[in-house]
Amino acid sequence: MSTTGQQIFTTLAADGTLTVELADATFPAPTGNQVLVKMEAAPINPSDLALLFGPADLENADFSPGKVVAKMPEPFNTGSKGRHGQRMPVGNEGAGTVIATGDSDMAKALMGQRVACVPGNAFSQYCLADAPMCLPLGDLSSEDGASGFVNPMTALGFVENAKMDGQKAIVHSAAASNLGQMLNRICQEDGIALVNIVRSEAQVDLLKGQGAEYVVNSAEDDFMAQLRTAIDTTDAYYGFDPIGGGQMVDYCFKAMEQVAVGKMTEFSRYGSNQAKKMHIYGRLDLGPTILTPSYGFGFTLTGWLLFPFLQGAGMETMGRMRQRVLAGLTTTFASKYKRKVGLAEMLTKEAALEYRAMKTGEKYLVTPHA
Amino acid sequence: MSTTGQQIFTTLAADGTLTVELADATFPAPTGNQVLVKMEAAPINPSDLALLFGPADLENADFSPGKVVAKMPEPFNTGSKGRHGQRMPVGNEGAGTVIATGDSDMAKALMGQRVACVPGNAFSQYCLADAPMCLPLGDLSSEDGASGFVNPMTALGFVENAKMDGQKAIVHSAAASNLGQMLNRICQEDGIALVNIVRSEAQVDLLKGQGAEYVVNSAEDDFMAQLRTAIDTTDAYYGFDPIGGGQMVDYCFKAMEQVAVGKMTEFSRYGSNQAKKMHIYGRLDLGPTILTPSYGFGFTLTGWLLFPFLQGAGMETMGRMRQRVLAGLTTTFASKYKRKVGLAEMLTKEAALEYRAMKTGEKYLVTPHA
Repeated sequence: MSTTGQQIFTTLAADGTLTVELADATFPAPTGNQVLVKMEAAPINPSDLALLFGPADLENADFSPGKVVAKMPEPFNTGSKGRHGQRMPVGNEGAGTVIATGDSDMAKALMGQRVACVPGNAFSQYCLADAPMCLPLGDLSSEDGASGFVNPMTALGFVENAKMDGQKAIVHSAAASNLGQMLNRICQEDGIALVNIVRSEAQVDLLKGQGAEYVVNSAEDDFMAQLRTAIDTTDAYYGFDPIGGGQMVDYCFKAMEQVAVGKMTEFSRYGSNQAKKMHIYGRLDLGPTILTPSYGFGFTLTGWLLFPFLQGAGMETMGRMRQRVLAGLTTTFASKYKRKVGLAEMLTKEAALEYRAMKTGEKYLVTPHA
Repeated sequence: MSTTGQQIFTTLAADGTLTVELADATFPAPTGNQVLVKMEAAPINPSDLALLFGPADLENADFSPGKVVAKMPEPFNTGSKGRHGQRMPVGNEGAGTVIATGDSDMAKALMGQRVACVPGNAFSQYCLADAPMCLPLGDLSSEDGASGFVNPMTALGFVENAKMDGQKAIVHSAAASNLGQMLNRICQEDGIALVNIVRSEAQVDLLKGQGAEYVVNSAEDDFMAQLRTAIDTTDAYYGFDPIGGGQMVDYCFKAMEQVAVGKMTEFSRYGSNQAKKMHIYGRLDLGPTILTPSYGFGFTLTGWLLFPFLQGAGMETMGRMRQRVLAGLTTTFASKYKRKVGLAEMLTKEAALEYRAMKTGEKYLVTPHA
């Protein structure tokens, strides 16, 4: 027996016309390890926005009830050739109640439970999810559990990855984000020194109010000096950056190298021997990444994504991480939302412009049955 | 008993005045594992030029016998703060005859032999070198052995590194260089597929004449299509780039990703799962490295230097590599020079402008006693 409900779809035509619409969808009965979840809450994460709207021109888009038609600018339209003509579901994660299950014992055990899940079509009234990826929420609400995967596992993944690489300190940019605040709490729990880079005095206060020891403000004239001091104190030659474009990664490498060179007794044309590593895990800035030749050859820049990291880390590490997240969903791993919206309201101009701006403290939660 | 001879020194003053001069220097008697080498030949490599002149303005420099005074432009002068006021020797490698040794057995065994060495002051009539780093040349001439370390060990290092990383194919840019031609010969011997990127038809002919199978010309309109085809055929998702600045690394990542995406059955906003890795090992272009956001998160860019690689690889690997180089010094690892110059002639305007341009086929060999 199949179930019908409303779901959001995004379609990019070859001519650059982006259509995002709310439409009826049919969900087949779950089989095997699948469960059918009646979705109650789903956060709008930056990684969802990349697919939902990307850099489409929302200011001049055509908004009608349950539908947005916008223009995708170049070079992004050509760069998205792979999705041209495909009607795609959106929404990495969310939470809801299991209302039907497949035949497997693991699936059947979840019947009737509230779970967090990672279905890939979370902006929907119903989702088919894999039982092994569902996190039973027990007494917690769907709102508490909705952001239980992407941000918590990413922030925790940074710390796990740092430990695997023998690091005791981390640099993090755009550090006042929901994810950044989580990382700040994890690092305090685990005794990892965290250099938080933010861009306003208010964000400095926010993080210091949450116990952060090292917060540097990129809007200040002495930003580089602040950053060098923090790196010198913490030995943080290892960092994560969600901005991607522009020079934030470059500034981090530069400051790391300047600290390392300051400790050298002899000049080397090749720079210091200090290994410096930065990970780009997001693209808040879609411009090119600029790396100036000012830190020798001891640098590594690499992309970082949650799922490849988890695959590499293995099931045991992932299980341990998920248990820690579950235990801390309302504390260490808690998310805050500015506003809740239904599926139709999510496609209004007022809402879309606000949550697409991805400003600190302005995350939205979608409640598909509200 | 100390020895006196002429040596080249380079000094950058804080105000950006660069002085490169030939001067008398005193070499103390070798001790322990040291040997004193009477230098007969030393190549001018790009890595030497970075220290010797860097991006100083040679066109408008003041040339007098045995002396060059030039201006170092910004931001390079400030970026070279670490060497301000230091009178530095130059010349990574060369070859000559051991005329005195320290007390160790290893040093004494080299007495009277012709050796290739890596003294760091090879643009000199005499050098103190470490015996363990000397390569006895046997019947080979100093000219044959002068370039026996930097280029051969670097080219061989790329192949060793690729094998350690499980790769069967390599992309190499600026591939018509002395080092590139060497790499082409090594890859043919070892059955590693090599995608050579060059920038002229003459360079395509040069490498194809040396048996290269994949040569793509970045000056052609269909460069990216050529590159994609070569990557598709060879599965080369791993490369080395001596240019550094500009977009060559970006073009390689883009072509690799486009090939990988072409093989995917489903669109992913995160790009392909194909790991792509590029190494920057030189700075022929001193501009910033530009990375466009067009290949997802599965990329790694890292600096590559010979000495850190050899340290990581260990003594056994290094010993094996050196034996292979020695056996192939006049074949696989042979270098060609456009011209030989004495130490004074090296500092004439005509010579300096030509070898500083680092054009293919215009490498110079310094003969310090000629």
